[in-house]
Amino acid sequence: MATLRDVAKLAGVGAGTVSRFLNESGYVSDDTKLKIQDAMVKLDYTPNELARNLYHHRTGNIAVLVPSVTFPYFARFIECVEGELYERGFKTMICSTAKQQNAEMEYLDMLKRHIVDGVITGVHTLDDDIYRKIHLPIVALDRYLGEEIPVVTSDHKDGGRKAAMVLINSGCHRVMQFRGSQKVKVASPYHERHNEFERVMKEHGILIENYNLAWNHHDSPYYKKIAYEVAPILKDYDGFFAVDEGAAYVMSECERLGMKVPDDIQIVSYDGTFITDLTEPRLTSIVQPVEQIAADAADLIVQRIQGMSFLNKKIVRPVTLKAGGSTISCSTEE
Amino acid sequence: MATLRDVAKLAGVGAGTVSRFLNESGYVSDDTKLKIQDAMVKLDYTPNELARNLYHHRTGNIAVLVPSVTFPYFARFIECVEGELYERGFKTMICSTAKQQNAEMEYLDMLKRHIVDGVITGVHTLDDDIYRKIHLPIVALDRYLGEEIPVVTSDHKDGGRKAAMVLINSGCHRVMQFRGSQKVKVASPYHERHNEFERVMKEHGILIENYNLAWNHHDSPYYKKIAYEVAPILKDYDGFFAVDEGAAYVMSECERLGMKVPDDIQIVSYDGTFITDLTEPRLTSIVQPVEQIAADAADLIVQRIQGMSFLNKKIVRPVTLKAGGSTISCSTEE
Repeated sequence: MATLRDVAKLAGVGAGTVSRFLNESGYVSDDTKLKIQDAMVKLDYTPNELARNLYHHRTGNIAVLVPSVTFPYFARFIECVEGELYERGFKTMICSTAKQQNAEMEYLDMLKRHIVDGVITGVHTLDDDIYRKIHLPIVALDRYLGEEIPVVTSDHKDGGRKAAMVLINSGCHRVMQFRGSQKVKVASPYHERHNEFERVMKEHGILIENYNLAWNHHDSPYYKKIAYEVAPILKDYDGFFAVDEGAAYVMSECERLGMKVPDDIQIVSYDGTFITDLTEPRLTSIVQPVEQIAADAADLIVQRIQGMSFLNKKIVRPVTLKAGGSTISCSTEE
Repeated sequence: MATLRDVAKLAGVGAGTVSRFLNESGYVSDDTKLKIQDAMVKLDYTPNELARNLYHHRTGNIAVLVPSVTFPYFARFIECVEGELYERGFKTMICSTAKQQNAEMEYLDMLKRHIVDGVITGVHTLDDDIYRKIHLPIVALDRYLGEEIPVVTSDHKDGGRKAAMVLINSGCHRVMQFRGSQKVKVASPYHERHNEFERVMKEHGILIENYNLAWNHHDSPYYKKIAYEVAPILKDYDGFFAVDEGAAYVMSECERLGMKVPDDIQIVSYDGTFITDLTEPRLTSIVQPVEQIAADAADLIVQRIQGMSFLNKKIVRPVTLKAGGSTISCSTEE
């Protein structure tokens, strides 16, 4: 394989000149540029990106941390954010942290060690203090990690309200929701949908039961297990609210027990991923604008890498209702 | 932030000694090692990984290319292979190539430019000639890319046979399958399941119709669209075979048209991902051992990076049948 020196020799210039040209680090005449380019083409020379990155203190890599890649919302987020970052000239590294105890810490450390230029994180298992000490490019997906770390989220409060109103307008009187773990030390945006769902239900005098999910579990076997446990209990309820995967498993378990959807139990799901169309009836769902959220996250991390700083920055995107057959009404009117 | 020179100064040694220690590139006495380690801890010094990688000609990154991250089988493969690579000391970069025309070529180029140490690829949109010219670490998932590139796959031929036998033992007489695109220039392992399915059906005198999928489409909107087109036609059939996502969409469309599963139409799916449990009835499916396949791919790529070469290496893992309610029989006996 050709080296920088081979290129310099063929172009009839010094190696330092080729280096200046490749790193855009000083004056090189147009005539010389053409000679170097010509020599590079002739020799099929590809510069060692590692050396270039070392010079520019830049790797071109951004890490995206999620608890689970197979969880449909995260899978779609990764697909979208990878495309957005690719268009902005960055490569995406992923880490699924649920199985790997120290992965979150290790990736933050990679920021310091110049392996990645930035981190977009949808996980939060460390103390906030750790995040507060890192003044490097981090963007949070649905997590509050300190005032220097911008957050991208959807309007979960409105999502919780919409979900509640659909079930109320459908005539429900006793409802259950799967609620995200309350174990995290600082309230995260996604808690707002559970709180608002509960508040609206109580305001309308409707019995509401919260089923607390285990912390940081987003895998199918977990949802399958709790759907199996919860379905028999739901005979005493007429409304149910959970993320897509939880809702879909609960629906199929209820149907297996002979309950009819929406006659016996009505179901609203959260996220609006492809699995809401796989069930019969289709799931009425609150849709997070994942494409927009991924574009926002990509914009913010690139701006952070370019040196912009943010204080208490929060981007909140609206959610929408997708009508399905799992509820009698799909109205979100008060 | 502390520099290598700060560490050298505090340890009372030369910068070259610290460099030798960090890069394990020459003799450093145990006494000196302790002094350097002590200084590194006191100064909270983290070595610049880029510089180290430049020295070792190694990035620690492996790229995984798939057509779509949200396609359930690929999502699960990525999750598994990321964990396997993490355990072996490598980070995973991903690229979802369906939307990005030049991405496959660009990632191969990244191999040459030392941005990644290896590529595991589940896509195949380029000419085989391009792959034959690259004598760098590549491992293929379900694709034949040349004799130097090892392939990990499952026993698709047996999978096609098992799927056919389940429908035959269930009493089907007219069946349809979604068949992977025949447009790729070289036969890929996954074609074998379609060919074997067709062969066994014909051998048993059963009418078999192939519905050819568009090339390189693995997205939900596509499967949703063709399920909508195909479901009315399936009134004239009594058996159907497709990948999980296609099977699930077709099942829900058929149910919407008033057809009963398995009474009117029986369905077998391929892959065995979590979505086979989301439908009612559950899908009878042929399960690919994705965890094992991911571990194999990780082993092979690390061995390639370490300098091992393979000629016509192919790892084939057995598939299994997962019984569901979408077929009357779940027997694969001849």
